Amino acid sequence: MTATADHQTFDQISSSVASAPVAVSPRVSDDDPVFTLHRGGKIALEVTSPLENADDLSMAYTPGVARVCLAIEETPALAEDYTWRGNLVAVVTDGTAVLGLGDIGPAASLPVMEGKAALFKHFAGVDSVPIALNTKDVDEIVNTVAAIAPSFGGINLEDISAPRCFEVERRLQERLDIPVFHDDQHGTAIVALAALENAARLTGRRLEDLRAVVSGAGASGIAVTKIILAAGIGDIAVGDRKGMIHSGRTDLTPVKAEIAALTNKAGLSGSIEAALAGADVFIGLSSGTVSEEAVATMAPNSIIFAMANPDPEVHPEVARRHAAIVATGRSDFPNQINNVLAFPGVFRGALDVRASRVTEGMKLAAAKALADVIADELAPDHIIPSPFDRRVAPAVAAAVAAAAKADGVARR
Amino acid sequence: MTATADHQTFDQISSSVASAPVAVSPRVSDDDPVFTLHRGGKIALEVTSPLENADDLSMAYTPGVARVCLAIEETPALAEDYTWRGNLVAVVTDGTAVLGLGDIGPAASLPVMEGKAALFKHFAGVDSVPIALNTKDVDEIVNTVAAIAPSFGGINLEDISAPRCFEVERRLQERLDIPVFHDDQHGTAIVALAALENAARLTGRRLEDLRAVVSGAGASGIAVTKIILAAGIGDIAVGDRKGMIHSGRTDLTPVKAEIAALTNKAGLSGSIEAALAGADVFIGLSSGTVSEEAVATMAPNSIIFAMANPDPEVHPEVARRHAAIVATGRSDFPNQINNVLAFPGVFRGALDVRASRVTEGMKLAAAKALADVIADELAPDHIIPSPFDRRVAPAVAAAVAAAAKADGVARR
Repeated sequence: MTATADHQTFDQISSSVASAPVAVSPRVSDDDPVFTLHRGGKIALEVTSPLENADDLSMAYTPGVARVCLAIEETPALAEDYTWRGNLVAVVTDGTAVLGLGDIGPAASLPVMEGKAALFKHFAGVDSVPIALNTKDVDEIVNTVAAIAPSFGGINLEDISAPRCFEVERRLQERLDIPVFHDDQHGTAIVALAALENAARLTGRRLEDLRAVVSGAGASGIAVTKIILAAGIGDIAVGDRKGMIHSGRTDLTPVKAEIAALTNKAGLSGSIEAALAGADVFIGLSSGTVSEEAVATMAPNSIIFAMANPDPEVHPEVARRHAAIVATGRSDFPNQINNVLAFPGVFRGALDVRASRVTEGMKLAAAKALADVIADELAPDHIIPSPFDRRVAPAVAAAVAAAAKADGVARR
Repeated sequence: MTATADHQTFDQISSSVASAPVAVSPRVSDDDPVFTLHRGGKIALEVTSPLENADDLSMAYTPGVARVCLAIEETPALAEDYTWRGNLVAVVTDGTAVLGLGDIGPAASLPVMEGKAALFKHFAGVDSVPIALNTKDVDEIVNTVAAIAPSFGGINLEDISAPRCFEVERRLQERLDIPVFHDDQHGTAIVALAALENAARLTGRRLEDLRAVVSGAGASGIAVTKIILAAGIGDIAVGDRKGMIHSGRTDLTPVKAEIAALTNKAGLSGSIEAALAGADVFIGLSSGTVSEEAVATMAPNSIIFAMANPDPEVHPEVARRHAAIVATGRSDFPNQINNVLAFPGVFRGALDVRASRVTEGMKLAAAKALADVIADELAPDHIIPSPFDRRVAPAVAAAVAAAAKADGVARR
């Protein structure tokens, strides 16, 4: 696939998606191709060693397998080389924050986790297994994942609601020496930062000259804020349902209090819409809306990422009347901020060097690599690669692997 | 593969296996084809839905996948039909009783669990995932497996040492409405019973006319004893390291006390070797040995299953001097009592009818179906099908599915 072919125009994407059914209905229908496609699931196990005769069996199973077991018992790291674990990620969820659907439980989350597993394999050759948990308790989630961890080379946390997701990730990474990565936070953050870097590049500005407003202080809002701060943005202020987050508020969770201390140099204390006056960047990661009037008060050449799904905070056609660059989370508009641009390459790179964790440096390197893939092709409707751009995962993986080595967390 | 081709002679099997290295050494060697074969593991994930363009993505992932999620949220059983869960088994171990290697830990057990997963798929089309646990605590094992259970259609417990394995299986099956099956117990028991049924058939006797001695009161010894009792054997007595188990002993675990109450009508209290005098059947599931002198005291037309691995309790060539029929657990002698003859078909049948558990009736039906596969081909060196006999898994699966319906545990 060439770069040009990947860079679909708005109309091409819209028309190709328009043919697929998008209405949400809990009814099972044999006429619905989505149900036909899902029958029996979207993934399966493949056997990669021959099992046709007694010789095969004596090597893949007893008695030969005992030699591999004993070698691993003596040198545990050999499990990465001589089992599928070195290429295997657990896609772990408790089903509490699935897509835009909310707390639908573990069984109902499985089709999304299978989709994720399919994307891991398709885009980066990473094997993965959906693990949907029958508990929402932080202690139980941490203990369960820690107990099954010897089977896996990495843990991708998925669709676990805030604020539990922060503690689950932190405690698991403390206990395990394999990467623990909450994709709703860091996948979104990496892709948003890449898009912002390219938007700044295209409009001739540096990140440090930009002032941003983030709507939403959930998993993705917090993570996007942190990575953009780490990347050196001039200022950033975050709003939740009660308005802008500032250190004078007495209703903040620990995570929000941390954000208050790191952001909002101007001390904004009103509504998100009011905070937009003069801002260069709006990043929406909420279920709220922003009016055209508020968008119109932003600085010239403004950048709007309205990433709420399925309904962006402001419709992209409306936003484009006032902003230089508009991105959303949807596949049927240009500039889709899609996590699939990050997580396959991040784990590919981390697994390739046996990283023990995903550092901030690895995330920043992933964002830069992702942005750079289309550095020579930038246009207002093309600040981020297509999900089908085959250059993306290898570029992200290489950058992540190099950063892991630089940060001293690579084990080979 | 035809029945004739499956029925290899002793010499054929010996010569084919002789070429494969069998010595156990923890040294990794690039010259060892076993390590070459294991590099990268023996299994991988396969994506079964297309992901080539935006249309594909909108069906397999967002937004289309949301319709499947909502349908499952409304009707949880649909997860069996619209995800891979309906065909998926967790191969769960704590690494405490791996092959003949003992407690080698979860990482070192992975090659065996992967081998099991490969066998599940190769012989019965069942998808499975190795889950090696970083705990030996019964409560933690039960809680962990119960927590991940929404992801799976069945639980195969593997290589968990006795007596914890009994409690783990019992408590998990109480909590879960999917089959929980400890293969070291029930897989071995099913195949041993099938072999015994054919051995009795071949020597013109009924099970109720036979008196058996079992050496070993671990997971497999207990399970074999129970299934053979359920199948109607005349009498059976079990010995452990301290000699025959009888109700007068004061050192019995709860499980052994239960066995004492069910077995040993003659009240044998000496050594296992002494108990063999006049016995029709010897079943070895221990690490002990039995002398030729003791074997020689058995009844005429005796049946000897010396299943200890890698060293049978009595060498099969020695046993054949005194017994009509000899079987072992090894692939390089005739009549291999190999679990692979049972577990793929058992789970295939259980999953096919969405069984909520594996009943005693399903196990007995599996044994009978397995024995019947070669009912017209019986010979002293062919009382059990070859592991490569393609008739086995479908026959076992059909019998297990029918028994599940008869026992009222099938859900379709």
